[in-house]
Amino acid sequence: MAWNVVIAGGGFGGFYAAKTLEKILPPHAARVTLVNDVNFMLYTPLLPGAAGGALEPRHVVVPLREELETTDLRLGSVVSAEPDRNVVRVESLHGKTEELPYDQLIVALGSVSKTFPIPGLAEHAMGFKALPEAIELRNRVLRCLEAAETLDDPAERAEWLSFVFVGAGYAGLEGLAELQDFAADIIDLYPRCRTQGMRWVLVEAKERVMTEIQPSLAEFAQRELRSRGIEICLNTSLNEVTPRSATLSDGCVIPARTVVWTTGVKPHPVVAELGLQTDEGGRLVTDRNLRVAGRENVWA
Amino acid sequence: MAWNVVIAGGGFGGFYAAKTLEKILPPHAARVTLVNDVNFMLYTPLLPGAAGGALEPRHVVVPLREELETTDLRLGSVVSAEPDRNVVRVESLHGKTEELPYDQLIVALGSVSKTFPIPGLAEHAMGFKALPEAIELRNRVLRCLEAAETLDDPAERAEWLSFVFVGAGYAGLEGLAELQDFAADIIDLYPRCRTQGMRWVLVEAKERVMTEIQPSLAEFAQRELRSRGIEICLNTSLNEVTPRSATLSDGCVIPARTVVWTTGVKPHPVVAELGLQTDEGGRLVTDRNLRVAGRENVWA
Repeated sequence: MAWNVVIAGGGFGGFYAAKTLEKILPPHAARVTLVNDVNFMLYTPLLPGAAGGALEPRHVVVPLREELETTDLRLGSVVSAEPDRNVVRVESLHGKTEELPYDQLIVALGSVSKTFPIPGLAEHAMGFKALPEAIELRNRVLRCLEAAETLDDPAERAEWLSFVFVGAGYAGLEGLAELQDFAADIIDLYPRCRTQGMRWVLVEAKERVMTEIQPSLAEFAQRELRSRGIEICLNTSLNEVTPRSATLSDGCVIPARTVVWTTGVKPHPVVAELGLQTDEGGRLVTDRNLRVAGRENVWA
Repeated sequence: MAWNVVIAGGGFGGFYAAKTLEKILPPHAARVTLVNDVNFMLYTPLLPGAAGGALEPRHVVVPLREELETTDLRLGSVVSAEPDRNVVRVESLHGKTEELPYDQLIVALGSVSKTFPIPGLAEHAMGFKALPEAIELRNRVLRCLEAAETLDDPAERAEWLSFVFVGAGYAGLEGLAELQDFAADIIDLYPRCRTQGMRWVLVEAKERVMTEIQPSLAEFAQRELRSRGIEICLNTSLNEVTPRSATLSDGCVIPARTVVWTTGVKPHPVVAELGLQTDEGGRLVTDRNLRVAGRENVWA
């Protein structure tokens, strides 16, 4: 009998797992079901381009139904699992929960933004990890310019014209760079804003930007940003956010209406509901073959 | 001293009024302020194209700041006026209300969807007049296909695969045509939906479609739609909408999750707050020069 393979998650991990199974499995050897909450894979490296308007949102996604041939795409959210019974529970788009049985399960649920208990952060800061957030961020920059343009008081205008990004990894640095570029292109259309100028601030707790790449390249990116008038505060963290300001660990208070939070990720919260072994960071524990600890037929 | 001209509304009327004043007024003869709630003019004839995905949303709008040179664009909503004092009250993006004085006022606030007290209409039907509605409609068609694909019961699937448009004027007919075309293009990607097929229904209270154009052309459009499998119910109106059905005046109940309402427009509700003379339909009363009745310096 054909195997049931269930893949939870349609990001890079889940999508390429499905693609690869389609390629290497003999025809009809398995029924592969991919469960994802949207019908596309977000090509995350291009997300900053979508935020800055250099790319159309539809050009930074891969439509799963077009790319997958034999895999059954099931739209819905994985809500839990029972590995002892070999089932995953999925809540469908129309709110029904059903059980999907599997012979082999691949968990590729990805990550969500990591937040810290900083006062005001959850209420007043924006994330930058999903496509709607990228679009919202671009719209927000435009709305801020429009709002500033209607104000008589320069101090009030300054709040709308200041943008603080916290976290100088790839997403934060590239996101800020694209949006600042976009804003610099259009500010000529806003007579008052143009005269006053904007303020773009990148805040990073570590001693340099982009620790994921080599120092010389990060150094180059940093010089480039500073030459464009972007302020970079290293060895600095965020202490508080209000609707109108960001307070940094060095005591500096930046009057700003927009604070974007891009300091890393944590495992998807559903991972904790799967009945599988996780480490203290909430990540699944696997062996070198990506087999989840204690389970013969679960992979992550 | 230079005149203050205030234009309320940045649609076809307001935008072209500003454009024309820029062209014909001597330099510095007047300060022209255009008040609008968004910084673009929606090119409404292309809205169905945006709904169907044939056009990018950004390609169906005219950016007011780029198109207007000397006109001051003020983003905000007109909330009322006092013609005896020659002021308009505007609520800005950040929630402050302020008074704009004028020497000449042009009212071009446009229209909003006209609804009737049909049970369930306000709660369960969608409008199709603004850009977000066009985008929402396209996304909804996609979500309906995805939802139907997850269902085992053909009758339940039929609800998600049925789309009812009420009102066969330009917006309704063209909107339905573009969306049905879009859906027909992608249904191949949905194995269950493809087998079952979709249902697209156009409901019109009058005896023919598109009364705004000549009968022979309307006849052609109608034949075209019918040849594509679209059902057209003439001399029929909508009696009730539920989340899962539309009931027509001929007693027919269509199981459908999507009902779109495109039966005409009424004046923008703010028009009633301007202290100007309106007719029983709520429209401003003007003379043949578009001067509002009883006011020397107000135009509509």
